[in-house]
Amino acid sequence: MKVNSHYNRELPKKIPVRVLRYENEFAKYLKTNKEQLDNVIVRRFFYTQTAEIYGGTKGLFDLGPPGCALKQSILKLWRQHFTIQEGMLEVESTMLTPSIVFDSSGHTKRFHDFVVQDLETNECSRADHILEDWMEKLIEEKPKNKEEYQLVKIKADSYTKEEIDELFEKYQITTKSGNKFSKAKPFNLMFGTQIGPLGSSKGFLRPETAQGIFVNFKRLLEYNGGKLPFACSQIGTSFRNEISPRQGLIRVREFPMAEIEHFVDPLDKSCKKFEILKDLEISLFPKGRQENNEGCIVMKLGEAVEKKMINNETLAYYMGRTYLFLKKVGLKEEGLRFRQHLDNEMAHYAQDCWDAEALTSYGWVEIAGHADRAAYDLSAHMKHSKQDMRVFIGYDVPRVEEVLVFKPKMPAFGKHFKRDTRFLMDYLKSESAESIIQLINEELFIKNKESYTLKVDEEKCFQITPELIQIVKTKKKKTGRRFVPSVIEPSFGIGRIMYCVLEHSFYVRQDEELKNVFQFTPFVAPVKCCVLPISMREEFEPSINKVAYALGSAGISRKIDVSGATIGKRYARTDEIGIPFTVTIDFQTIEDGSVTLRERDSTKQVRGTLKEIVYAIQMLLKGKKDGGFEWEDVLSKYTQVKRPEKEK
Amino acid sequence: MKVNSHYNRELPKKIPVRVLRYENEFAKYLKTNKEQLDNVIVRRFFYTQTAEIYGGTKGLFDLGPPGCALKQSILKLWRQHFTIQEGMLEVESTMLTPSIVFDSSGHTKRFHDFVVQDLETNECSRADHILEDWMEKLIEEKPKNKEEYQLVKIKADSYTKEEIDELFEKYQITTKSGNKFSKAKPFNLMFGTQIGPLGSSKGFLRPETAQGIFVNFKRLLEYNGGKLPFACSQIGTSFRNEISPRQGLIRVREFPMAEIEHFVDPLDKSCKKFEILKDLEISLFPKGRQENNEGCIVMKLGEAVEKKMINNETLAYYMGRTYLFLKKVGLKEEGLRFRQHLDNEMAHYAQDCWDAEALTSYGWVEIAGHADRAAYDLSAHMKHSKQDMRVFIGYDVPRVEEVLVFKPKMPAFGKHFKRDTRFLMDYLKSESAESIIQLINEELFIKNKESYTLKVDEEKCFQITPELIQIVKTKKKKTGRRFVPSVIEPSFGIGRIMYCVLEHSFYVRQDEELKNVFQFTPFVAPVKCCVLPISMREEFEPSINKVAYALGSAGISRKIDVSGATIGKRYARTDEIGIPFTVTIDFQTIEDGSVTLRERDSTKQVRGTLKEIVYAIQMLLKGKKDGGFEWEDVLSKYTQVKRPEKEK
Repeated sequence: MKVNSHYNRELPKKIPVRVLRYENEFAKYLKTNKEQLDNVIVRRFFYTQTAEIYGGTKGLFDLGPPGCALKQSILKLWRQHFTIQEGMLEVESTMLTPSIVFDSSGHTKRFHDFVVQDLETNECSRADHILEDWMEKLIEEKPKNKEEYQLVKIKADSYTKEEIDELFEKYQITTKSGNKFSKAKPFNLMFGTQIGPLGSSKGFLRPETAQGIFVNFKRLLEYNGGKLPFACSQIGTSFRNEISPRQGLIRVREFPMAEIEHFVDPLDKSCKKFEILKDLEISLFPKGRQENNEGCIVMKLGEAVEKKMINNETLAYYMGRTYLFLKKVGLKEEGLRFRQHLDNEMAHYAQDCWDAEALTSYGWVEIAGHADRAAYDLSAHMKHSKQDMRVFIGYDVPRVEEVLVFKPKMPAFGKHFKRDTRFLMDYLKSESAESIIQLINEELFIKNKESYTLKVDEEKCFQITPELIQIVKTKKKKTGRRFVPSVIEPSFGIGRIMYCVLEHSFYVRQDEELKNVFQFTPFVAPVKCCVLPISMREEFEPSINKVAYALGSAGISRKIDVSGATIGKRYARTDEIGIPFTVTIDFQTIEDGSVTLRERDSTKQVRGTLKEIVYAIQMLLKGKKDGGFEWEDVLSKYTQVKRPEKEK
Repeated sequence: MKVNSHYNRELPKKIPVRVLRYENEFAKYLKTNKEQLDNVIVRRFFYTQTAEIYGGTKGLFDLGPPGCALKQSILKLWRQHFTIQEGMLEVESTMLTPSIVFDSSGHTKRFHDFVVQDLETNECSRADHILEDWMEKLIEEKPKNKEEYQLVKIKADSYTKEEIDELFEKYQITTKSGNKFSKAKPFNLMFGTQIGPLGSSKGFLRPETAQGIFVNFKRLLEYNGGKLPFACSQIGTSFRNEISPRQGLIRVREFPMAEIEHFVDPLDKSCKKFEILKDLEISLFPKGRQENNEGCIVMKLGEAVEKKMINNETLAYYMGRTYLFLKKVGLKEEGLRFRQHLDNEMAHYAQDCWDAEALTSYGWVEIAGHADRAAYDLSAHMKHSKQDMRVFIGYDVPRVEEVLVFKPKMPAFGKHFKRDTRFLMDYLKSESAESIIQLINEELFIKNKESYTLKVDEEKCFQITPELIQIVKTKKKKTGRRFVPSVIEPSFGIGRIMYCVLEHSFYVRQDEELKNVFQFTPFVAPVKCCVLPISMREEFEPSINKVAYALGSAGISRKIDVSGATIGKRYARTDEIGIPFTVTIDFQTIEDGSVTLRERDSTKQVRGTLKEIVYAIQMLLKGKKDGGFEWEDVLSKYTQVKRPEKEK
């Protein structure tokens, strides 16, 4: 199964420190195949534009049978590799989300791209895209200023509104037809809708799945017995109202994601399991090398953590797991790298960020992010929901520490709250109110606001003012720490990964005529097996049904090709959607029930009883590593048959 | 594994013709458990309201770890049982859908419920719900008119606006506080949004997944080699802006579905595979028996088709497959029936409809529909998209048939279309234009419209008027038929099925104290295995990691319970989320690596090496039927151990 016939030459097993040379070669190869690939994708219905019969919709794609099955396989592998193997919790939150969640997380205010409008035609475009295109034009026109333009291009999507307006002015940027652009305007990327009959309740389609984990953090912590660290994963669909969708599946308005939120003690981001992966070598593109225009460097994960290139073990562990996943799913090593975010690229609260990127015919594309988001999200929800999101970790021996405590100003406090006085005093003196006291202190005595609304539950709500209370520092014997955990977030764009798998798996076989092949691994292949009777005669029907039933019962997805085409044509069609195995039914099958099994990449065939062949396919799908077969095992265990003339 | 301790007595194996007696008993049983069940669902985080920390959102639910895993298992089983085993095609279309799709399918105009508004408070309610509640009140107050009220209640959701207004008037219906209601108003249940930056393009969140299959029909037919019959399935989420969500997971605003569109020749709805299921006995509730207030009848599917109770073999075949699926997923026979739609319940185009219903503490609930939708959907999209959705089936020998053909009125036609004359004449005379000629005939000469817009492609568009053409009948030699296929649609509410599995699986074990147990089958159980060290001492850690790793690698999802609770408490917690197997690590494990395996329902245990036990679990998950084990096999193959004192 190690057919590399699609390369002009074998790539070296180990990537040297500078992979740039191979990168260029692989990039050229991908670009050469692009047109042929697009043709197969449409013709074999991997996917198509949504509502194609009505002219299609930009940025929305429907998956046809092979695309749908490919996505399923990738998700199945993802769940096994992360959720099951790592023992993560898993949730599924709704896509439709009440606006308060995104008001709290900051998305309602800040989740936007900048648009500029053509002042003549009113057409909207993304400011950063226009900027990038303009810089490319300038690089061609005035190569001596290349470095300046290159930097603007790299930073294009991280400028503020003011910076964008300045740059548009500085470089006198216009539309292709020379029209002027408006000033940049923020455009929120969330799709809004109204929940309920009176339209009173605003909702959004989530732009990421992560918030669905954060808002459920308290329940998840409880489910995990109150212990840290733990991880929770979520697979689901997210939506972004892209201004100008382009590049097929790379930038779309509705897309499948898989996200992990790994909750840790901010003071201890070590990772026990890191030991297993510390010697794994991966291709890194740290910020220093990006700024100095150097290429990637291949380094052991352990070394990268020691050198402080990667912030901590947990982050590095996930980068390693992602690398293994992407290889398993069929991406080629020479088209994979981990790029660190530049400082101005990261959100203000993030500690470190590394994107897994795959090389495609469009260039390098982000397919998974790995961010240390600190305690930002949980703190934001804690603040807005007034729910305690902290974790308690006990000390081995109690310690004396400085804390803030509340003191009522009597008699004003008593007069004001009357019958609730005792309740409020008990409530604010309880340990669980510590974070609330901190909040009250911040609002009333640091920010000097007039009052603080204390919401105890649905019914009870109190207005606290500086006239009613004091907050003082005191020393207290503490049995442990209570803190908001930090979050390490690996986040996967499943649609993009799927597209990259298509690009990396596609090759054109140089037979007497050119034949398209997807070299999918058996595990991710959309359909596992094709059933081909060599003739359309009626007497074959019972055998076809028998084979189809045996495969279906064994959980092996199959496609039956009973069209009138020649066997060679039908094998070619099978290869074109990347089906790894074909069971062929011939006249001997009718006699003795035996069938042949053909493997896609070697095009070799063996013969056996139906039971034997179904078993062989099951073992091949299991894979050598998990106690199954690889194709070489099948070749040695079963009788090999000469290839029929027509396929040769 | 056949523990039925939750029944007061064993139910007979065969359901007699009248199941009503058992129905009542089972219903009573479900109602008794309801409060306890709700408590476990919330406490063990099967699911919770979306954005619970902000007070929750009506009709939206987030799935926690056990709920999420349960849903995954049900979907996996569904895909294996239908898509894979039946060899169906599968697509995944977007949820966000351009409005034109639903304009064409009729949803924009007709997908609504009727609301009535409290004239004092402005609160909106569903008219049919108010009607149902009012009838129930009347039945109690005036039992002698029971039959009249009962009929109105049954028909509540199928009345027209005028009928509703009449009934509200007739029965003088008011709110609970005596306020008057407004007239009924239609409220469209689709969530709307705007696609793109200028808000120019209206979109909806799909209210069903089916349309995503219909709009892709042409590509699917091509993928299937142009042959009928074939089926295409889709698993996905749909959205309905319910007016007043109630009954937990039963009526929600965002829900997972699985739908099948089985395309057949309208003249031949026979089904080859029906042979396999024709002797299957299922509980049917045909319209006649509903109208006569009789109970269900248990009948063989073959007999029901012969007696014309079920319209055709294909419909009956799917009902049988659904029945087998629902049993596999863990629903109890005594709480399952197939109810036929009453004539006024069905859409005007539907030929026959049967709902699979499950008994719950809320009463009978629809969990899957089986509808013969004729050619309605494809014809609607054909009409609006002007794309030919017909299938061609060749005759054995050519036949002479009557067809409509087009004749241009010269010279008007030539003068009008000028240079396009030849193109248009060729186009309208081609065989693929036959359906267009039919449409033009209908619009211009039957409906007498002024003109017909003929859209040939994105660029070419022509106005045809009666002055320009004639349409005449003629006889023609035909080599086959071209027709719009009929559709049989089995459609599953996965969220509802999941909820019913929870109700049917839950029981309270009568040990020395009451213990909650979910009797999930190993296949659908959310987590397959629990890992329990009998002590929290540090020396257990290596063994815990070894067991966790071995299970994870074997693809067995596990939960590790290292809390300080007693072993008995922890077994109880395991049973409470329905984990079928527990691996216990004790002092002997540290010595010789052996572990014990406990089964949930029998609470019996065996001991073996880690490898043996992992293998046993894999075999148990595979199940006896597919060559694996059942618990009895494990008991006989491995050394049984006495139960530790604490659990007894």
